[in-house]
Amino acid sequence: MAGNRIGTLFTVTTFGESHGIALGAIVDGVPPGLALTEADLQGDLDRRRPGSSRYTTARREADQVKILSGVFEGKTTGTSIGLLIENQDQRSKDYSDIAELFRPGHADYTYHHKYGHRDYRGGGRSSARETAMRVAAGAIAKKYLAQVCGVEIRACVSQLGPVVASQYDWKQVEQNPFFFPDASQLEALDEYMRALKKAGDSVGAKVRVVATGLPVGLGEPVFDRLDADLAHSLMGINAAKAVSIGDGFDVVTQKGSEHRDELYPDGFASNHAGGVLGGISSGQPLQAEVAFKPTSSIMVPGQSINVRGEPVEMVTRGRHDPCVGIRAVPIVEAMVAITLMDHLLRHRAQCGDVQVDTPTLSMREG
Amino acid sequence: MAGNRIGTLFTVTTFGESHGIALGAIVDGVPPGLALTEADLQGDLDRRRPGSSRYTTARREADQVKILSGVFEGKTTGTSIGLLIENQDQRSKDYSDIAELFRPGHADYTYHHKYGHRDYRGGGRSSARETAMRVAAGAIAKKYLAQVCGVEIRACVSQLGPVVASQYDWKQVEQNPFFFPDASQLEALDEYMRALKKAGDSVGAKVRVVATGLPVGLGEPVFDRLDADLAHSLMGINAAKAVSIGDGFDVVTQKGSEHRDELYPDGFASNHAGGVLGGISSGQPLQAEVAFKPTSSIMVPGQSINVRGEPVEMVTRGRHDPCVGIRAVPIVEAMVAITLMDHLLRHRAQCGDVQVDTPTLSMREG
Amino acid sequence: MAGNRIGTLFTVTTFGESHGIALGAIVDGVPPGLALTEADLQGDLDRRRPGSSRYTTARREADQVKILSGVFEGKTTGTSIGLLIENQDQRSKDYSDIAELFRPGHADYTYHHKYGHRDYRGGGRSSARETAMRVAAGAIAKKYLAQVCGVEIRACVSQLGPVVASQYDWKQVEQNPFFFPDASQLEALDEYMRALKKAGDSVGAKVRVVATGLPVGLGEPVFDRLDADLAHSLMGINAAKAVSIGDGFDVVTQKGSEHRDELYPDGFASNHAGGVLGGISSGQPLQAEVAFKPTSSIMVPGQSINVRGEPVEMVTRGRHDPCVGIRAVPIVEAMVAITLMDHLLRHRAQCGDVQVDTPTLSMREG
Amino acid sequence: MAGNRIGTLFTVTTFGESHGIALGAIVDGVPPGLALTEADLQGDLDRRRPGSSRYTTARREADQVKILSGVFEGKTTGTSIGLLIENQDQRSKDYSDIAELFRPGHADYTYHHKYGHRDYRGGGRSSARETAMRVAAGAIAKKYLAQVCGVEIRACVSQLGPVVASQYDWKQVEQNPFFFPDASQLEALDEYMRALKKAGDSVGAKVRVVATGLPVGLGEPVFDRLDADLAHSLMGINAAKAVSIGDGFDVVTQKGSEHRDELYPDGFASNHAGGVLGGISSGQPLQAEVAFKPTSSIMVPGQSINVRGEPVEMVTRGRHDPCVGIRAVPIVEAMVAITLMDHLLRHRAQCGDVQVDTPTLSMREG
Repeated sequence: MAGNRIGTLFTVTTFGESHGIALGAIVDGVPPGLALTEADLQGDLDRRRPGSSRYTTARREADQVKILSGVFEGKTTGTSIGLLIENQDQRSKDYSDIAELFRPGHADYTYHHKYGHRDYRGGGRSSARETAMRVAAGAIAKKYLAQVCGVEIRACVSQLGPVVASQYDWKQVEQNPFFFPDASQLEALDEYMRALKKAGDSVGAKVRVVATGLPVGLGEPVFDRLDADLAHSLMGINAAKAVSIGDGFDVVTQKGSEHRDELYPDGFASNHAGGVLGGISSGQPLQAEVAFKPTSSIMVPGQSINVRGEPVEMVTRGRHDPCVGIRAVPIVEAMVAITLMDHLLRHRAQCGDVQVDTPTLSMREG
Repeated sequence: MAGNRIGTLFTVTTFGESHGIALGAIVDGVPPGLALTEADLQGDLDRRRPGSSRYTTARREADQVKILSGVFEGKTTGTSIGLLIENQDQRSKDYSDIAELFRPGHADYTYHHKYGHRDYRGGGRSSARETAMRVAAGAIAKKYLAQVCGVEIRACVSQLGPVVASQYDWKQVEQNPFFFPDASQLEALDEYMRALKKAGDSVGAKVRVVATGLPVGLGEPVFDRLDADLAHSLMGINAAKAVSIGDGFDVVTQKGSEHRDELYPDGFASNHAGGVLGGISSGQPLQAEVAFKPTSSIMVPGQSINVRGEPVEMVTRGRHDPCVGIRAVPIVEAMVAITLMDHLLRHRAQCGDVQVDTPTLSMREG
Repeated sequence: MAGNRIGTLFTVTTFGESHGIALGAIVDGVPPGLALTEADLQGDLDRRRPGSSRYTTARREADQVKILSGVFEGKTTGTSIGLLIENQDQRSKDYSDIAELFRPGHADYTYHHKYGHRDYRGGGRSSARETAMRVAAGAIAKKYLAQVCGVEIRACVSQLGPVVASQYDWKQVEQNPFFFPDASQLEALDEYMRALKKAGDSVGAKVRVVATGLPVGLGEPVFDRLDADLAHSLMGINAAKAVSIGDGFDVVTQKGSEHRDELYPDGFASNHAGGVLGGISSGQPLQAEVAFKPTSSIMVPGQSINVRGEPVEMVTRGRHDPCVGIRAVPIVEAMVAITLMDHLLRHRAQCGDVQVDTPTLSMREG
Repeated sequence: MAGNRIGTLFTVTTFGESHGIALGAIVDGVPPGLALTEADLQGDLDRRRPGSSRYTTARREADQVKILSGVFEGKTTGTSIGLLIENQDQRSKDYSDIAELFRPGHADYTYHHKYGHRDYRGGGRSSARETAMRVAAGAIAKKYLAQVCGVEIRACVSQLGPVVASQYDWKQVEQNPFFFPDASQLEALDEYMRALKKAGDSVGAKVRVVATGLPVGLGEPVFDRLDADLAHSLMGINAAKAVSIGDGFDVVTQKGSEHRDELYPDGFASNHAGGVLGGISSGQPLQAEVAFKPTSSIMVPGQSINVRGEPVEMVTRGRHDPCVGIRAVPIVEAMVAITLMDHLLRHRAQCGDVQVDTPTLSMREG
């Protein structure tokens, strides 16, 4: 309950610092009999991995995950699954320059005041490096959801600074280093990023995620609504500042007659709700967006103070992403998968198996 | 774990349907020795109460809360506090018209498919009526936070449909029926709402909440960040579709050099972060916004289906708010209070008492 | 998490003091569609009720339970069930004699030091009066378990002071005021109790509980074994001092060749294990025993101190059970039902429905 | 929530099978600033280690624990602590003889029916090998409790088969391979164990644990009483069949006048309660006992069935403890430490720091 676990029935508990020996997770609640190998996890880890393009940090990590338990003869046993990634790129550099500094926009200041004692190397536990474990655990959830219900979860960068995607081509997403769904703007994006990198600055981004194939009924009333739990899991990603479901903040100016999704015998006429009604999945595609702030580690000098309260001017050196939103794409997918998986098990506990073969009312054609 | 409880150490568990006998809650984890009477809870309940103005539902409920346990000789004993509000306005009307219908935009469709068997009277458990209990429980948290740390939590409607607040006068908020902070626009607002009501339609709203006086250190790393838990508790309010912290979705186009809040010996120079760094409170004012969708119960006829999948045209009759965002104001405050209280206890468990007398770096003056 | 809740998926949260306004509970996680009325709960409440015989406290309470939510048209809806019992016999007596005393064997001393401020009237929250709510909640679990799996849970007093039951006639249990299964000793028991009451003293008791019809598979590995969770729920009953499963402490002197229950194609040859292997139900009858200490409230004068540390001699006056173990019988059944119900849901979440029609290996005949 | 985690605030989550790659744990909730090295954990691990005497299994495991995170510059940081022990003695033996068998007294039968798919090598997850991680995690709790409150936790074998300890010399406990506190019976014990081993049989044992230095106030009302949580954590140890607090089952025949511990200005006159009143620690020594069944893996042939329901005669070969109760001693201490640590944090959350310097009423002298 010190924050390193998520989930009620499908639980993911993690450990590990940016520059520590290893990262690890215990994934509990996985149903028995699921075929699972390390390769199932490695795919998404590779998508998240640093150093995979010139637009992400130059830190080199193979991020090779090992399954230490819970799988026997290629199938899950229903017992807890231990995962481990050993850190390789632990440069024995000198951290004395940041040991006593509070980098603006980082967790240095708050960790210092909360705990007194902190691992300052690369941000320690507050580094986004821990998200590798979320991606590994999310891959297990993804596989189960796909196999049992046919759920498919896909995310992309829908906006990067001023560049907005105007079309969503999911195939395109995996073919460019920005996870961007609009091929027509890739050139502009590339140019923007080059200029940004040259200026030593960073920028924010918006990530869009869509899950299809959901059964009706996932989510609990009142506090643990599916959208509330998604908001929790998505806002819990490093650098996230906002989460929206369906039409999100656009609902503020919508009329009721405009927003409500009418129903017809062959399905819903629209999906302003984003796939959730009363906190419970409606069978329509689940749609959400997350805003990621710009990386705080930039070359542009900034004012700060040290642990003694003295003013210092600081410039971040080293390897950093100019836009953390890019690498957040597989993390967003993972968090959605973890949340859906948890709610699938919760639903099953109280209401029995979801009926996946029953045709559910989805988005109306045409 | 069927969704009717929130919190880890300060927990609120609720029950009750819109047209049932009573609403109730059990509030657990309240420290002993807090002076508490029913009057402490009634104030916020009255602010939330239906029928308090012509812009909210005409349903009449006194919402008189009773404290059934956990308080002795005017002070909390540290044991669980039972709260009860008896429903008064249970009209013995005929519900046969909606018993078999799925009202668009409501939880009828999803509850029907999740549970099979549902209380359709007024939305049953999915009605916003249950939020009365959140407000009552939140008032306990508010009082404790104010007393122990000097925390003050205030919310207002920052936008209602097209009408945007351009100034924040907190005194004004409690003086108009819209909880609107900008007196200069009250006339425009009144006019807009009259027209809306005449048209039988509804509209969305944005609620802004600010908490001041927070100590540094509330929030846990990784999954249970303060902002993630706030996102959970705020997105869990009926009709909420988006939650943002600090600059929210605006961060998407911000540069790192622009977003990061620089530190000076006398405080932070800005508060783009909204009071949270690395998921932990920084001592600056906590700032969040929530988008509420327009009420789905409107007079404008709409298409839907019944439980047998047959098409029906429907018009909602009865007593409904044209803008649910208005009455959400005290609920938003309550959810923030509940979340902060929980994190105060969590922090204390692991790190000891928060240091409230230590001057913390807050927003820099001038 | 301040101790007033039990369960993971089937959860029971309670409130209420001995001499407060009311006792209440919220029962969450009940599957939808279960036929349920107040009469289903009242039966066990009547068995537990004070004043039902001359061997239990003379306090008069109707213990009439009201279902306030979660049931619609006679069936559960899957949402939280609110339960309430109003206290009737709140004598406006003078408590000044015990307000500042620590009654030996009671929780006065520990509550005083833990909370500083406590409701001393009749023990407040520490009184066994709160168990009424456990019994009410347990009755819901009992009904579900019986209906879905055919589980039957029965408890009795197997020993009261020196009087040991030598035969188990379950029909007999409900026909005498001691819940004693051995008719041949009722006369001796009656005599023993008369003498005890005359002496103003009290005595301990042992309660035995058996659950039949359990499916194989309930319980989780490592920490949340079925027997571990039963130990938790049974040791959590007021006055409980020991819990055993199967042969219990007798295993200390058993040989492995003697203890292990051999398996044959037609079933287990014995049940030393008490129905649990590796923490998971084996399909054999679940067998447990609980030791209850003698009531601490007795007429025999005893030494104690007051809140100022001064010595006092004290005699408990008023209405008290000479043997709390007797009224513990329905409570033990309730706690077993609550624990089994929780594990049934937990099992279903991860492993799917239990196979109740599959013939499971049970105790071998003959 | 699939059983591999214990604790509410101080949580221990574990993974690992008997013959898997490694065992691991994540320990969360440890306060920051505690000096901690691997050596602090290794001591108790060595006490539990197999192969440490001729009376325990001949399996050789160094059980060398690695701390992978959560400790920086020799002190805990308040973030999650990852622990790892690599299995060394994974004999590549042929398991085909037990893959399809249900060994009597083992979890084979129940795991098979619960999960369908199981790791049968050495019992997989159901093997007591997982307790190594409990011991490692417990050592962290032990160190914190000792440092902050001066709590000392000691266990011993109080009875082994027919041999009962008649005196408790704690120094003696660490000087013989039986953790036996009574030197006068060591010879008899040695003789008994030799005969037992020769016969290829096993025997049960009783372990006694005492914790001194506890503050008043640990434990929560109603369900999470300190004794209830101890019962849960102790009954959750492999092979445990009964748990008692204080006088345990002896209370059944005690009178109230005999059992209640009287209070005097200088302390309690006795400790029949075992250090817990109303579920909350009284400051007296905490006393509990646990019964462990005899090892089911013995050389004596026994009847069983295989997964197809066919009868088989079986003899366990290989390396096994003739009395698992012996090696349970450090595990019992660990589980008590984990439970006390959790309750210390829970108490601090709601009621503030325990007052360790205030003289608490303990056992009266003389």
